[in-house]
Amino acid sequence: MGELLFTGGTVVTAEGSYRADVLVENGSISAVGASIGSDGIETVDASGLMIMPGFIDAHTHMDMPFGGTMTADDWATGTEAAAAGGTTTIIDFALQEEGGTLAGAFDAWTEKARDRAVIDYGFHVAITDLRDDIKAELPSLAAKGVASVKIFMAYKGTPLYTEDDDLFETLQLSKDAGVLVLVHAENGDAIAKLQQQALARGDTAPKFHALTRPEAVEAEATNRAIRLAEVAGAPILVVHVSCAPALEAIHLAHERGQTVYAETCPQYFAFEYEDLAREGFEGAKYVCSPPLRDPSNRPALWNGLKTGDLQIFGSDHCAFNYEGQKELGKDDFTLIPNGIPGAEERAMTLWTLGVREGKLSENQFVAALSTNQARIYGAYPRKGTLAPGADADIVLWDPELSTTATVDNRHGNVDYTPYEGRSFTGGPAAVYVRGNLVYKDGEVVGERGSGRFVERKFTATKGLEVRV
Amino acid sequence: MGELLFTGGTVVTAEGSYRADVLVENGSISAVGASIGSDGIETVDASGLMIMPGFIDAHTHMDMPFGGTMTADDWATGTEAAAAGGTTTIIDFALQEEGGTLAGAFDAWTEKARDRAVIDYGFHVAITDLRDDIKAELPSLAAKGVASVKIFMAYKGTPLYTEDDDLFETLQLSKDAGVLVLVHAENGDAIAKLQQQALARGDTAPKFHALTRPEAVEAEATNRAIRLAEVAGAPILVVHVSCAPALEAIHLAHERGQTVYAETCPQYFAFEYEDLAREGFEGAKYVCSPPLRDPSNRPALWNGLKTGDLQIFGSDHCAFNYEGQKELGKDDFTLIPNGIPGAEERAMTLWTLGVREGKLSENQFVAALSTNQARIYGAYPRKGTLAPGADADIVLWDPELSTTATVDNRHGNVDYTPYEGRSFTGGPAAVYVRGNLVYKDGEVVGERGSGRFVERKFTATKGLEVRV
Amino acid sequence: MGELLFTGGTVVTAEGSYRADVLVENGSISAVGASIGSDGIETVDASGLMIMPGFIDAHTHMDMPFGGTMTADDWATGTEAAAAGGTTTIIDFALQEEGGTLAGAFDAWTEKARDRAVIDYGFHVAITDLRDDIKAELPSLAAKGVASVKIFMAYKGTPLYTEDDDLFETLQLSKDAGVLVLVHAENGDAIAKLQQQALARGDTAPKFHALTRPEAVEAEATNRAIRLAEVAGAPILVVHVSCAPALEAIHLAHERGQTVYAETCPQYFAFEYEDLAREGFEGAKYVCSPPLRDPSNRPALWNGLKTGDLQIFGSDHCAFNYEGQKELGKDDFTLIPNGIPGAEERAMTLWTLGVREGKLSENQFVAALSTNQARIYGAYPRKGTLAPGADADIVLWDPELSTTATVDNRHGNVDYTPYEGRSFTGGPAAVYVRGNLVYKDGEVVGERGSGRFVERKFTATKGLEVRV
Amino acid sequence: MGELLFTGGTVVTAEGSYRADVLVENGSISAVGASIGSDGIETVDASGLMIMPGFIDAHTHMDMPFGGTMTADDWATGTEAAAAGGTTTIIDFALQEEGGTLAGAFDAWTEKARDRAVIDYGFHVAITDLRDDIKAELPSLAAKGVASVKIFMAYKGTPLYTEDDDLFETLQLSKDAGVLVLVHAENGDAIAKLQQQALARGDTAPKFHALTRPEAVEAEATNRAIRLAEVAGAPILVVHVSCAPALEAIHLAHERGQTVYAETCPQYFAFEYEDLAREGFEGAKYVCSPPLRDPSNRPALWNGLKTGDLQIFGSDHCAFNYEGQKELGKDDFTLIPNGIPGAEERAMTLWTLGVREGKLSENQFVAALSTNQARIYGAYPRKGTLAPGADADIVLWDPELSTTATVDNRHGNVDYTPYEGRSFTGGPAAVYVRGNLVYKDGEVVGERGSGRFVERKFTATKGLEVRV
Repeated sequence: MGELLFTGGTVVTAEGSYRADVLVENGSISAVGASIGSDGIETVDASGLMIMPGFIDAHTHMDMPFGGTMTADDWATGTEAAAAGGTTTIIDFALQEEGGTLAGAFDAWTEKARDRAVIDYGFHVAITDLRDDIKAELPSLAAKGVASVKIFMAYKGTPLYTEDDDLFETLQLSKDAGVLVLVHAENGDAIAKLQQQALARGDTAPKFHALTRPEAVEAEATNRAIRLAEVAGAPILVVHVSCAPALEAIHLAHERGQTVYAETCPQYFAFEYEDLAREGFEGAKYVCSPPLRDPSNRPALWNGLKTGDLQIFGSDHCAFNYEGQKELGKDDFTLIPNGIPGAEERAMTLWTLGVREGKLSENQFVAALSTNQARIYGAYPRKGTLAPGADADIVLWDPELSTTATVDNRHGNVDYTPYEGRSFTGGPAAVYVRGNLVYKDGEVVGERGSGRFVERKFTATKGLEVRV
Repeated sequence: MGELLFTGGTVVTAEGSYRADVLVENGSISAVGASIGSDGIETVDASGLMIMPGFIDAHTHMDMPFGGTMTADDWATGTEAAAAGGTTTIIDFALQEEGGTLAGAFDAWTEKARDRAVIDYGFHVAITDLRDDIKAELPSLAAKGVASVKIFMAYKGTPLYTEDDDLFETLQLSKDAGVLVLVHAENGDAIAKLQQQALARGDTAPKFHALTRPEAVEAEATNRAIRLAEVAGAPILVVHVSCAPALEAIHLAHERGQTVYAETCPQYFAFEYEDLAREGFEGAKYVCSPPLRDPSNRPALWNGLKTGDLQIFGSDHCAFNYEGQKELGKDDFTLIPNGIPGAEERAMTLWTLGVREGKLSENQFVAALSTNQARIYGAYPRKGTLAPGADADIVLWDPELSTTATVDNRHGNVDYTPYEGRSFTGGPAAVYVRGNLVYKDGEVVGERGSGRFVERKFTATKGLEVRV
Repeated sequence: MGELLFTGGTVVTAEGSYRADVLVENGSISAVGASIGSDGIETVDASGLMIMPGFIDAHTHMDMPFGGTMTADDWATGTEAAAAGGTTTIIDFALQEEGGTLAGAFDAWTEKARDRAVIDYGFHVAITDLRDDIKAELPSLAAKGVASVKIFMAYKGTPLYTEDDDLFETLQLSKDAGVLVLVHAENGDAIAKLQQQALARGDTAPKFHALTRPEAVEAEATNRAIRLAEVAGAPILVVHVSCAPALEAIHLAHERGQTVYAETCPQYFAFEYEDLAREGFEGAKYVCSPPLRDPSNRPALWNGLKTGDLQIFGSDHCAFNYEGQKELGKDDFTLIPNGIPGAEERAMTLWTLGVREGKLSENQFVAALSTNQARIYGAYPRKGTLAPGADADIVLWDPELSTTATVDNRHGNVDYTPYEGRSFTGGPAAVYVRGNLVYKDGEVVGERGSGRFVERKFTATKGLEVRV
Repeated sequence: MGELLFTGGTVVTAEGSYRADVLVENGSISAVGASIGSDGIETVDASGLMIMPGFIDAHTHMDMPFGGTMTADDWATGTEAAAAGGTTTIIDFALQEEGGTLAGAFDAWTEKARDRAVIDYGFHVAITDLRDDIKAELPSLAAKGVASVKIFMAYKGTPLYTEDDDLFETLQLSKDAGVLVLVHAENGDAIAKLQQQALARGDTAPKFHALTRPEAVEAEATNRAIRLAEVAGAPILVVHVSCAPALEAIHLAHERGQTVYAETCPQYFAFEYEDLAREGFEGAKYVCSPPLRDPSNRPALWNGLKTGDLQIFGSDHCAFNYEGQKELGKDDFTLIPNGIPGAEERAMTLWTLGVREGKLSENQFVAALSTNQARIYGAYPRKGTLAPGADADIVLWDPELSTTATVDNRHGNVDYTPYEGRSFTGGPAAVYVRGNLVYKDGEVVGERGSGRFVERKFTATKGLEVRV
């Protein structure tokens, strides 16, 4: 593979924005220069565009079993959707099977990804059964390039659900193993009771998905996970923060000086509870957990992104078809598979609602989508930066690109899009992974199977993240 | 001027750290590359060193009249001290004279600096008398490259003191003029009363400087300035935050989403109230405003730097000799000139007490000393970054350099150092301004008068600063 | 005067509610008993009614000059309005004249009140000019039965306005003199600027009264007064808290353990900014300071009353006629006299909107209107309680009394009522001052001149107030 | 039983203090009067004393099984100790047995108490096994005069421990049943893990009791219980709050307007972690849960009592002998029975450390020990007040009474006192239950079996408690 030179664009990083050329050699960035000579080099004219490090989405669920069905996107269609949104690396959740090992999860997910991914990838391992042999196995993850594990405090009654004693011990073990613990923070006990009571009352419609998962159950579990991490002396990361009360628990931890990372997602800005309450069964298209909230939560979430209480913005892409999948819950909202697609719309949503509205700077945008993800999840400086030596994962971002989402122009494999009819301003003109073009002008051109596994290494340095 | 190539070092920016070479041409950084060929280029071996953007110190007082005397450091010795600490640009306060204009202040300070500065410089203009003609003049500052003005809420009874109506109107006018307002936030009225009462009681020793400026007067004025800025719809910057209660006012503003920048200084970490209370008149060496505080404030200040409530770290270098100057207040602490030197020790203090103690990352160190200062004060990307196109202001930082401060090895012109006997680990091995070596191995080699004026332009973007 | 026995009612105090008889002898409560024999005693049947201690309104302005005019209510009509609302004692503000003394204010107000008041009364002295002789005079207030002084931080450009140095010294002196300082907390400097700017723009309508006094100016001054009190080591009371940001400053002081008392008023619950913005000049009827606010502030204010951040509920009765008085500001909102009537509606508003809506208990109602006022302002246990030995100031409260306010049924002397058409449930059936009936079934029957001066003595005990 | 007249004393209630006589007839207070004639009535001279409503201690464990042993105090000795401390009513915890019913617990505790109690009493029922039949039984408690139930979030591995789903459902059911839920809030899962790990390390000494129950586990569970109550829409009461982080969770709930009651206890003010760490096994005398804390928590706890975040002060009297009981844990701190005596010292501790030190008023003292307990726990106005009609439970409090605790002068049945050698100023001179003298001058004179069951009825009115 030869050289490639990006000229005429504005480099936009987590640190700042400036005019520069970017030279790529053998899949890596070899230089960033004021004016790099282009003799004999293939040149990409980035005039009018922003040159950003490729986006990282550390919250996807491709080809994953849930509630008796499989997510609609496998690693081919799922990573194609991600690429179309400017994402060049995903970190997906490899689920420990009942009776299975962590290595088993790693291997199974490697199998799913290897021949299909069009972009690079890594895995978190979701621990669902902390047996003694698993405790012994946990320290081996770091050597496999797995820098993070996940615990589900929700979904009581399923194998995912984990009680406090195992969550607490996972935090202790992970700290020693140099691995970061991610938590899905909702109180599974209260939700299970509320669901039973709702069904007993005959409240079966999709909106009861939200009404049985009120903000307080997320706020509670968020605080619980953080306090257990405090006792364990371990860092922690709270995924998909959806509401102000949960964010408050994180904010208070930061006031205490505790190392707590947190993610929020596009759906909490693009949609709201009323979408769940749509006529008929339409609301099922908006069922995800934590559920969509009242929009009064948004100012706090935006301020969290701005001030750094929320460092990263992930998609929680977890797609199910409406037909045959969401429909499983037609008579019982608890049977609707949880999750919505969003990998493709993630960056466009943040730019349209955030940067263009003056809520975030373009540099904070890059930090939340790329640099902070790389640093926190242990892939920096191979990923998340345009520094020399980094993989040449590059997004040419057109701040004025105007697009409208409809199911037909989506790159994933779902039979609907919750973003149907939604217009964005700002989007990727072209996307490169290790110097290879994978997306351009609406079309995914990357080869399936060309994505590579990214080894990560967690370093719990204080102030690790870039809060721009 | 030719080319210069820094090889073998680790580039440390606000965004992250990575191995790279840095090429300088004609005083600017022309490229950052994985491995830049050095044929025929003068090469600097940076092995084992960190390559950082030159530090900016936006809080100095060189050659400034105060209390009937002049600061001990003029622009030659003052900038030499700064250079010896890794600083490549200072932004100093040009004081409007009684009856004078803002242009007059600018011209007078230009005169002081021009033939003496060994590093680059800019000016804030301190407005001391907001007459109608000054209101009319204020919008002309931006065109002069002055992006910031300062108001003193303290020092009642001197020309510096400004009442709320003028502070408020300055905020309104500055907002329209594209200029950032800095405030020295202490309640001048309460201090003046407490000083009178102390003197009337015969309490004349240096420690009464602190006892007549309790934390609450700083907390009060900080909140007042922030609330007036809120009403004016203007951004604001609070200089030299010294204590937790003042920081709390800033924190609450950030919780509200208000754009408030804030600085803290090395003396609040290196020294404490007990230094003021030293035997005899020794405490006079530690008189600065706000005064040194109880060390119980420090955890909050560190957390402020870590979480981004405090974005910048300035020296407030304002040096007076002990003999003949500090001694003016021998019988009356209110006559002790306010201020201590610190330009030389600023970065070493932050590294020794902050980075080495695990309180901040090396990238946060660069942000607080350089990148955030450049971005907030409007000099980015000319300053504050190693991006191509930037001025080649470079610090080669030796994280293991061991030094001990004593008055004889200081590069300023003061007859004592408050840091006497203090040891640092970490310091600049060499410092370059626009590609020219100005400091190396303990010796300032820059030419007096070689410093140039830096035009700045303020942009009140939300999320402007890099919070690393 | 003989005996009087209240039978069959429910005694409602700040402590709790219980069935009891109340015996009055010679104007005092002589006993509270389970069942007191009524042989030969005049009996009042209180069946179905609540027997409460007479309400105290420590925030009235009767017969007061303001903006070149006098309030519409003198001490006859004003105290009649108060009595009709269940109030048996007012504490009014005696204003120091320009060049005048505190004793002069006391004497002048005594003169106004003596032959006119139908209920008991005391005075705060409003210090407007803290000359050296006034500093010397201040300690004499306590001996006169004046337990409180007031400072205006607002109204810059009028003699009322006081700068920080005098506010601070008043706090110091009052602490030593055993006197409580009350503050009207709004930043006079910012308001004056905003008013000038509004008028210069031609913005003359009543609503600009609010738009030139935004919440932040009240929040700022509230915090400033509290911080100055902290430095002085003095307790302080903030009158007429109107909005959440000002309340926050008080809440934070309570978190620190500082002794800060605070009052809110009925108008901030009954009316809102939109009333000021009414068609034409109608808004002038709602001009008071601090101004009416957005109703989004109310949940915080209710919570403040419930949790004890706000201990007392005063009327700030300051009545001006629409014709001839409010009209002074027809072309310039700054000339509209500030103030509205409310002494009559105070308790009914709190009961209707607070107790009936479940926001406060009936005991908290009594505390806010009576007991806390007596304790904080130093009249307890002569006032504010039904304890034996107390003045027999009694309200027979009918929790179901239904009334509708209209200018014709008001007992004051104002040509309009802001409460026009407003309905209340709950009100006084009968009111007694020292055993004498002063109000019954809509009619004031007390004799003008029968009110007596109440000597008060301030005791800054921590936890002085009853937070029920 | 005839009449009894208390003369010459100062009545001190939650509302205020005043001179009055108190007349008792047939065991009830019949009148409070300024000067009640004493013809033919037995008179008690209360000159120089304070007349207070009898104290209520709603947190005792008499004759209770724990860890294979029984508390050292049965209902005779335990209530004698309480009486000697001014307590006239206790509310004790009746424990549901494994497989048993709530009625069974009630009956068993009635049996323990009936022939032994020297003061009045009620029961909370501690639910330990929420079977379906128990859910059906719960609503019957109110009719039995049981207004409160308790859930233990701690003690995992024992029958006391309750998981979130049962806690949550108990909150829901209790709300409907008109019963208040009390929680022991510590995270049982984390504690169990930490205990196992400590023992595995060989850390068996008493101090590890505290080190395996860090503040964060109490803070976590406190927040969890409060959030679950929020979801259930139920009021809640957190017992024995021991540290600032737990109090913070309560404070935040009050900021949100949630109805949360909270208790703290004398041991958290009188003792500290260092007592647990005493030489040898001496620390076992100080083992209680939550454990003794670092004294840096105390300012927050005092402020909580002062501002009303903490409304009540209970003893958590749970006495075990050192010999034979505490010694069970000689080689394993987890086997030390949890609990210390304190019923006798409760009021004296609060007066000595609180009122005398200016942290609380005498009226707040009465509120925390008596009136708030009566109101919150549903015994007012029969208990907790000196109002006519109330039971004549009276403490004659001598504010200057000087005593020193030693095991020999204690009135309980424990072989040590943690208060050994501790001096108090302020204590009960005499104590009456329903007009009968039960304690005087150091001697308990009440008859065993004379105490009566107090029926209680919970009313979740907002602002129920008296925060004085």
